[in-house]
Formats: sequence, structure tokens, C-alpha cells
Amino acid sequence: MDERTALGLLGDRLSAAGDDAAVLDGQVVTTDMLHDRTDFPDGTTRYTAGWRAVGASLSDVAAMGADATAAVAVYAAPAFDEAELADFVDGASEVCAAVGAEYVGGDLDHHDEFTVATTALGDADEPVRRSGAEPGDAVCVTGTLGRSGAALRLFDRGGPGDIERANDLFRFEPRVAAGRALAGRATAMMDSSDGLARSLHQLAEASGCGFAVESPLPIDPVVDEVAADADDRLELGAFFGEDFELVCTVPEEALSAVRADVSVELTRIGAVVESGVTIDGESLPDRGYTH
Amino acid sequence: MDERTALGLLGDRLSAAGDDAAVLDGQVVTTDMLHDRTDFPDGTTRYTAGWRAVGASLSDVAAMGADATAAVAVYAAPAFDEAELADFVDGASEVCAAVGAEYVGGDLDHHDEFTVATTALGDADEPVRRSGAEPGDAVCVTGTLGRSGAALRLFDRGGPGDIERANDLFRFEPRVAAGRALAGRATAMMDSSDGLARSLHQLAEASGCGFAVESPLPIDPVVDEVAADADDRLELGAFFGEDFELVCTVPEEALSAVRADVSVELTRIGAVVESGVTIDGESLPDRGYTH
Repeated sequence: MDERTALGLLGDRLSAAGDDAAVLDGQVVTTDMLHDRTDFPDGTTRYTAGWRAVGASLSDVAAMGADATAAVAVYAAPAFDEAELADFVDGASEVCAAVGAEYVGGDLDHHDEFTVATTALGDADEPVRRSGAEPGDAVCVTGTLGRSGAALRLFDRGGPGDIERANDLFRFEPRVAAGRALAGRATAMMDSSDGLARSLHQLAEASGCGFAVESPLPIDPVVDEVAADADDRLELGAFFGEDFELVCTVPEEALSAVRADVSVELTRIGAVVESGVTIDGESLPDRGYTH
Repeated sequence: MDERTALGLLGDRLSAAGDDAAVLDGQVVTTDMLHDRTDFPDGTTRYTAGWRAVGASLSDVAAMGADATAAVAVYAAPAFDEAELADFVDGASEVCAAVGAEYVGGDLDHHDEFTVATTALGDADEPVRRSGAEPGDAVCVTGTLGRSGAALRLFDRGGPGDIERANDLFRFEPRVAAGRALAGRATAMMDSSDGLARSLHQLAEASGCGFAVESPLPIDPVVDEVAADADDRLELGAFFGEDFELVCTVPEEALSAVRADVSVELTRIGAVVESGVTIDGESLPDRGYTH
């Protein structure tokens, strides 16, 4: 059973599951696990790891249109180094502070592989689900795409300054403020952690619709520095994922007012259609990052 | 740096940390990680694993005197087997239902070692800390001690029926109802997950007091079936830990009224004193389960 099938099974059994976060009495809660081999390339500092791991859960809170309130983490490692642990806590605390939440601690565990499990909480007066997109709505994405994919290339390259830049790119700002501005106005929303293409397919499945996306996508300029060619650029920008931007649908007539209230760039990349997920008229494959 | 030192560092840096759960605006949140090698002996079913992992976090909520509301878990395994995952979700859901909380789902992750990260939430109008014990208070423990240690012996022995009994013993009921009845009346409380001895030392340190404990301790009868001798019986009952009972201090004059409201047995095992942790007048070592 692959992970998507397994997640579907969870969604079928648990009424609160199946979105970026579970909703319970006006509160959202979401949990995630990241680990060394798949999520923290060689060169990732513990400060960046703390920021990114907690940020991933805060991004799920943002994707519900919720106000992030608190986060906790389990830090599991083969051994506890004081400086590394302090750096992790600093990164975790600062990403919380960046979105107005509080990092309230967590637990430690011994584990062969460095592993972090994070949970974030938020208050949602109007939680935005994945299921409300309607044909005719605009489909939009916050910020730029491809930063994490580009970071991975920089970690691999490891030239002068590459590791530091890669760490910078890895420390994304969760889009909590944008999510709040979109609450009550976006018809459907999720984060792009699985990549834009897969996110669109997931929104399409949850909403029973399709998407007609048009280039150019808001791919980050850093991708041009590391991409081998145009195909590779699209791979990093639309499929790689781990970018933690918001992908949302907004009624066309509300778009300009929403844009004015969202402090980060909100790019219209296309429209909701009846069925099919396409880019420039061609099928956009349902593939991307599998966590 | 050992785990206790590292946890101390976390407590120093984070104002909300340092107790069984973090407290934030009348809510408690706690997170924990369990994994195959140290927490789930061979023979542990996925149903028991789901129950026990989520139960461990619900126990931390109980130890704050809070009302458990919800739990989430990350289920990380080398592969996802549908029946195993369904059993895990059933166990997680049923331990939540047993204490009036809701299991609202979580996430999946690929990991070489079966690993579960759980987070539980609760509402606390009067959170009970570890720090309020006063000389003269009675020190009490809920239920019986040594069940998890005995279960481990049964898992090891693996005779006819042993594995099933061990699984039964492993599925403890988190003491949420007892914790609620103790809120506002216990002066200090924590759970016995690190073992009674270590729990007493931690309460002593947080409260700046000591404990004079007297035998007999409420050691579960199942311990007598597996213990080699009296020393081994005390080892399983007082040091092994992982029992998830509540260890609390209660003013002597309030004890009989509290007992009447706590549905589980609440055994007075001694008194709070100025300093030192003793059993029958002899020093009780500060050792136990290190997570």
C-alpha cells in the first residue's frame, strides 16, 4: 500500500482527517515527521532543521486559513549535543515568532537517525478546506516556487557559499498571514509541500474539478541558477515540492481585493475548470514529492 | 549530554516547558515519540502500539489535571500494511474514546524503524504542576505499579497466552478522570512513566522537598507471577516505569474527600518531608526508565 492509499484509508476512518490539518471545535491541529535521510541534506544546520521542521507544520496551519498559536517538537537523535540542541530550539522558536506563534517545547528521544516530529496548533474561525473550488474561480499561488529544489542542488554542489545559501532557502516563512487574509474568501486551499502539480491534483480530487494552468509560473530566480534546462526548471518549480507556498482558489471577482490584503505576492496561475489538470493546454502529470 | 541534562536545557530556554505538558492559555499540549526497539517488544500488536503510544501522551495530559480533548499521531514504518495501519488507528481511537477525547488523525512517514510520534491536547482550568508539594502532604499513587515491567517479561517468555496477556497489560487506561478529580486539590502531580522512584525524585526537585515512602507499595499481583525474588519485584514495581499511573501529593486533610471522587484506587504511599527520598527509612535511588 503506498502512502496516498494509506492516507486515504486514514481519511475514511477518521472524520477530522483528510485535509492539511484536522479541525476540532474551531481549532486546527497538524503533525508531521521529518528525518535526516530524506529531509535534511548534508550541510543542513540544526538551526535550519528546527526552523524548517516546525515551519512545515505551521504551513499546514496556514493552509487552513488559521491563526497559528503554538508548536511542539520531538527531537530524536543518536546523541544530544548541547550546541546542536540549542540551535534547533532557536530555529524552532524563531519560525514560531515569525508567524506570531509560541514554541512551547516538546520531548527528546534517542534514535539512530536524526528525526523530528512536529505538531502545530491554530485557531480557525473559518477553516478553508481543499474541497470548495468551483469552475470559474481563479487558481493562485503565494510567493515563488522551486526554492527548496534549488536549495537541494546547492547542498549537493557544496561550492563556496552554497551551503549557507541553501540553508537560507530552506528557512521559508510559513504563509500564516496570507492564509488568514484568504480565510473566508478562498474557496479551497492547501500548501504546496507535495509540489504544485500534485497539490493541484489533490485540490481537483477533493473539489471534484479540474485546473487549466498557464505559464509562466512564478518560479523563483534562484532556480535559473541551478537548472540544467527548461525541463529541469519546470521540474524544480512545479514538481519537486517542499516549497510550503499556498495554492488556493479565489472567485475572480474577489481577486483584486484579496490581493490587496495579502502581503506576499499572490500570482494567478490559471482557472478552475470542470475536469482535467493542464498546463498551457497539455496534461500536467500527477507526480511530485512523496513524503 | 544525557537526556535529563538536555531536557533541563529545554526547560531553561522555554518558559512553557519543564512539566508533563506545556501550558498555554488554559490548554495543555504534550508530545512524545515511541519506537520499535525500545518501546514495542516483539509480539506487540499494532492495535496495542496505537493504544499505548497515544495513551502515553494522554497520560501526560492527565498528569496536568487536564481534560483530554484530542490526539494526533505520526505513523512511520518501512512499509504500510493496510491491516496493521487500520489496527493502529483502531487502538489510537479507542484509547482516546476511553478518556473522552477524539483521535483526529495525523500523518504517515517512511522510516526504517517503526516509530510513532504522538501529541495530545487538553483543557486545563487548574493545571497541576510538579512544583507545589509541601511537607506534610500525603504522597499517593493511582492504580497499581509494575504492569509494564511484567508485560515485558511475558513478551520475553512468549509461552502460551503470554503474548496476549502482555498486550493486555500494555494497554493501560490513561488516568484522565482521576487527574480531573485531583485538579485543584493535588499540590503536585506527574505520571509514573519514568518509574515511581524517578518520578518522586523529579517531584522532589521541582517542589524543593523530599519524600518518606513506606512499603507495601501497590505493586500489581501480576508482578509476583514473573518476579524472581523480592528485589526483582521492587525493581519492576518501583524502578522499571512505563506504568502511566499518577503520582501526586495531596494535603492530608483533603485525602479522604479526594479518594471518594477518584474512581480508581488512590494509595497513600507516604508523606512529603523536607528533603531526601526514602523508602522505609532507606534512600530510594534516583534511577529508572530513561526514554
